Amino acid sequence: MGVQPKLSKCLLALSTLALLACLPQAQSFDQSAPLQSVLKRLERQSDRYDADLTDLVAFPSVSALPDHLPHLLAAADWLVERLRQAGLQNMEILPTEGPHPVVYAEWLSAPRAANGTAAPTVLIYGHYDVQPVDPLELWDTPPFQVVKRDGYYYGRGVDDDKGGLLEALQAVEAWLQETGTLPVNVKFLLEGQEEVMSPHLTPFLRRHAGRLAADLALSADGGQPAADRGGLSLGLRGVVGAQLEVVTAGTDMHSGMKGGAVANPNAVLAALLAGMHDPATHAITVQGFYDDVLPVTDQDRRDVEAYGFDAEQEMSDLGLYGHVGEQGYSVLEQRWHRPTLEVVGMSGGFTGEGIKTVIPARASAKISCRLVPKQTPADILDKLQKHVAAHCPAYARCSLSALGGGAFPWTNPRDSPALAAAAEVHEALSGRPPLFLRDGATIPALAAFQQELKVDTTKFGWGLSDKIHAPNERLLAEMYDKGRRAWAIILERLAVAHGTFDEAAFGTAGSAAGKGAHDEL
Amino acid sequence: MGVQPKLSKCLLALSTLALLACLPQAQSFDQSAPLQSVLKRLERQSDRYDADLTDLVAFPSVSALPDHLPHLLAAADWLVERLRQAGLQNMEILPTEGPHPVVYAEWLSAPRAANGTAAPTVLIYGHYDVQPVDPLELWDTPPFQVVKRDGYYYGRGVDDDKGGLLEALQAVEAWLQETGTLPVNVKFLLEGQEEVMSPHLTPFLRRHAGRLAADLALSADGGQPAADRGGLSLGLRGVVGAQLEVVTAGTDMHSGMKGGAVANPNAVLAALLAGMHDPATHAITVQGFYDDVLPVTDQDRRDVEAYGFDAEQEMSDLGLYGHVGEQGYSVLEQRWHRPTLEVVGMSGGFTGEGIKTVIPARASAKISCRLVPKQTPADILDKLQKHVAAHCPAYARCSLSALGGGAFPWTNPRDSPALAAAAEVHEALSGRPPLFLRDGATIPALAAFQQELKVDTTKFGWGLSDKIHAPNERLLAEMYDKGRRAWAIILERLAVAHGTFDEAAFGTAGSAAGKGAHDEL
Repeated sequence: MGVQPKLSKCLLALSTLALLACLPQAQSFDQSAPLQSVLKRLERQSDRYDADLTDLVAFPSVSALPDHLPHLLAAADWLVERLRQAGLQNMEILPTEGPHPVVYAEWLSAPRAANGTAAPTVLIYGHYDVQPVDPLELWDTPPFQVVKRDGYYYGRGVDDDKGGLLEALQAVEAWLQETGTLPVNVKFLLEGQEEVMSPHLTPFLRRHAGRLAADLALSADGGQPAADRGGLSLGLRGVVGAQLEVVTAGTDMHSGMKGGAVANPNAVLAALLAGMHDPATHAITVQGFYDDVLPVTDQDRRDVEAYGFDAEQEMSDLGLYGHVGEQGYSVLEQRWHRPTLEVVGMSGGFTGEGIKTVIPARASAKISCRLVPKQTPADILDKLQKHVAAHCPAYARCSLSALGGGAFPWTNPRDSPALAAAAEVHEALSGRPPLFLRDGATIPALAAFQQELKVDTTKFGWGLSDKIHAPNERLLAEMYDKGRRAWAIILERLAVAHGTFDEAAFGTAGSAAGKGAHDEL
Repeated sequence: MGVQPKLSKCLLALSTLALLACLPQAQSFDQSAPLQSVLKRLERQSDRYDADLTDLVAFPSVSALPDHLPHLLAAADWLVERLRQAGLQNMEILPTEGPHPVVYAEWLSAPRAANGTAAPTVLIYGHYDVQPVDPLELWDTPPFQVVKRDGYYYGRGVDDDKGGLLEALQAVEAWLQETGTLPVNVKFLLEGQEEVMSPHLTPFLRRHAGRLAADLALSADGGQPAADRGGLSLGLRGVVGAQLEVVTAGTDMHSGMKGGAVANPNAVLAALLAGMHDPATHAITVQGFYDDVLPVTDQDRRDVEAYGFDAEQEMSDLGLYGHVGEQGYSVLEQRWHRPTLEVVGMSGGFTGEGIKTVIPARASAKISCRLVPKQTPADILDKLQKHVAAHCPAYARCSLSALGGGAFPWTNPRDSPALAAAAEVHEALSGRPPLFLRDGATIPALAAFQQELKVDTTKFGWGLSDKIHAPNERLLAEMYDKGRRAWAIILERLAVAHGTFDEAAFGTAGSAAGKGAHDEL
């Protein structure tokens, strides 16, 4: 953290509740007068921010369902208009090789330092597609209609990631409207296929590398460990998906007339899948699977310990009968530092009501492996294929092929400048330093930004991720507010860290009112 | 075979083709003048028999699909009317405890022997329900529209069992129309739930045991090994179905956020299923599964050898990569004499297009076990339940419950009188004795007749069963004709064996014409 923290001014920007949490050990930095005005403006406009969430969530932009494509495109149109209102420029809906376009916008007029140094450019990432809503019957409220209740917003995408990207947009808007400018240049890249593993993002980045060039990237997708405990992610697992097919015959067969003497593809598949884990250690048996995995370091173990993990609480929350995973690793180590092989789908024969006594000709499974540094999707896929080839019995044909776009694991170096700025924001908001953690989940864009754009990338999302991908997805209203403030603050901190922030370059509320045509709508 | 066979008269009743097959070693019996007339009548009416098949197959009487119940009931109505036309009496649609009724009809005026001995009563069994037709796209012709092509009839149920029951009906009709009487009393029991494993048949038989009393039963359901090779079944396997459920959590979980440290129900299920067979010997590992199984006898082995089995041909017919089954037994022994445990359905997690990286909360499988004497459905279900309880890991909940009505295995003693009569029919039709075989499949009614009605039961079906339950079900036209003749002959042979057949009691075509109002329609 390159900036000397001070306690004095942070209090101004904090709510009464947060103020109480500003314990004596809290450290912070000077907040500039413009930032203080921006934070005040954010507090005044909460009705408008509620409307944003309601409007954007109303589009059922489910990327996994082709039928929903028109809604997804309508959500993109809405975003273009909303970015325009916020004061962004050069809005564009950029096609990918798939059906889900990227929404792009920029504002590149940040004031230079007195010495002429250009302000840094920040690539802000988010996604406007959402997960399917099924099972619909488990929702207490209509998924695409935001309901605010008991301090939460409910609806598909309120957290992942419509709420997240709106927080960034609203912070940028507040700076532009309040001061007529921004401490940094920004480029918004809002994609529409994150929930289907961003299969076309890498070639998109390659094609638009020039336009997307930035000094660093911040992801509005991601979350916090708890409302009262901030965290910064040092890594996400990657992922590779595969479809495993077993064929044993050219036709379905009568289980009585032929059964007992012909291969059953369900049984072959079950044996193949069962054989992928050691029954005693729960380790993955695929040859070479762990070859490139880095050992868990002492620092990693300290982070795990600092984070804490309440097994009993999770068992109760999820209705588990126990935790189980690779022997020799704690639950958090299993999720943060170890790869997985999960059978996420399995199907063969008749699966409706009752029974049909037919031996099917084929069965299939969907496998999802989470990857850790230095594993790669292509290498793991290759090893899975070799495993399946080696274990397929002579009386069956087995094949394994890639399913969905793979994603590399992502890590953020502990000394990343953006991470230091993000840590300052956490301290400003909660009065104590963030936890350093890792995520078991995957955001394909983050590793892709590092690889294709060579840009330092930091995860900067503010939801609690406690119901994402599930029925009754929710966003704590307190976190929606906090996220917006966090984005406002980090834009300043990044300019300060870059040595380009000059308070004199920013106007006042009065001076900005003339420029921000959509102020106080 | 209690009747001295002679070659002389059989030739009259055989077609030119069958005549050529009347090899020197062929043996047969005297055919009575009335039987000869009946057989000639059967040859004359083939257009009408084509119409019967077309009309009955047109009802999509799929018992597995509740939506199809009206079609099933319409098929029952059609049968009642057709039985009336054939000269049967006391037609009735009798309800079962399920939605699928039994069609009943009788004719009980068979002439007594000169010494006053009553003619035997034969219970004729068949079923008018059919299997579902999916996958529809694999049918070359509409499944419920009979198409005659290249010597075959095509359509759902042409073989199993609409063609089969029509052959019996047509033979009875021919006797009544040609001679005004029948050599034996007959009772038709045509059920509508065989394809869902006759769950309500046993209580039905118990309730109607008096009305259904008979000296023997013949099943029009069943088939022949080949067009040029007749066979008689000495046994059918029984069956028991079970649903296996594995639950590991109260909610589906994100495979990244939670994966690696929570149980995966697909993996638990795969391990449970894989563990049900020994990977080396392919024997079933469920404790006590083979306890009651009888050893394969020398006579069984002679039957297997006499039957012959062409592994290469079956591999080619079914598109197999090889045969596989319990070590130490040949393919036919595996199917005729050994029990099975087949996973006929398996499902867990997302199984649509693409991938959804979610660990489901539950997974399930459907298991079908074929049973051999002296196994019972209840005992095997109990052993499966104990196996599952013993092998379910602590971090999951596993349960196994009965699925569908179980069926006992059925055997026909080698010295059954009806079997002897059936063997004579085979000799008369093909000039050589039938093979003695067993079936791997199940017809629940046959064991139920033995148990509930205490009646000697023989399988007497004539299709080739080569596409039953599958797309493009077909019936060789030659077998439809042969089945009809076979039924006409066996009705006489049973009366002869019973000592009640008296040629003088039968009228001629002329005399019968007045009685058979629907002759030559």
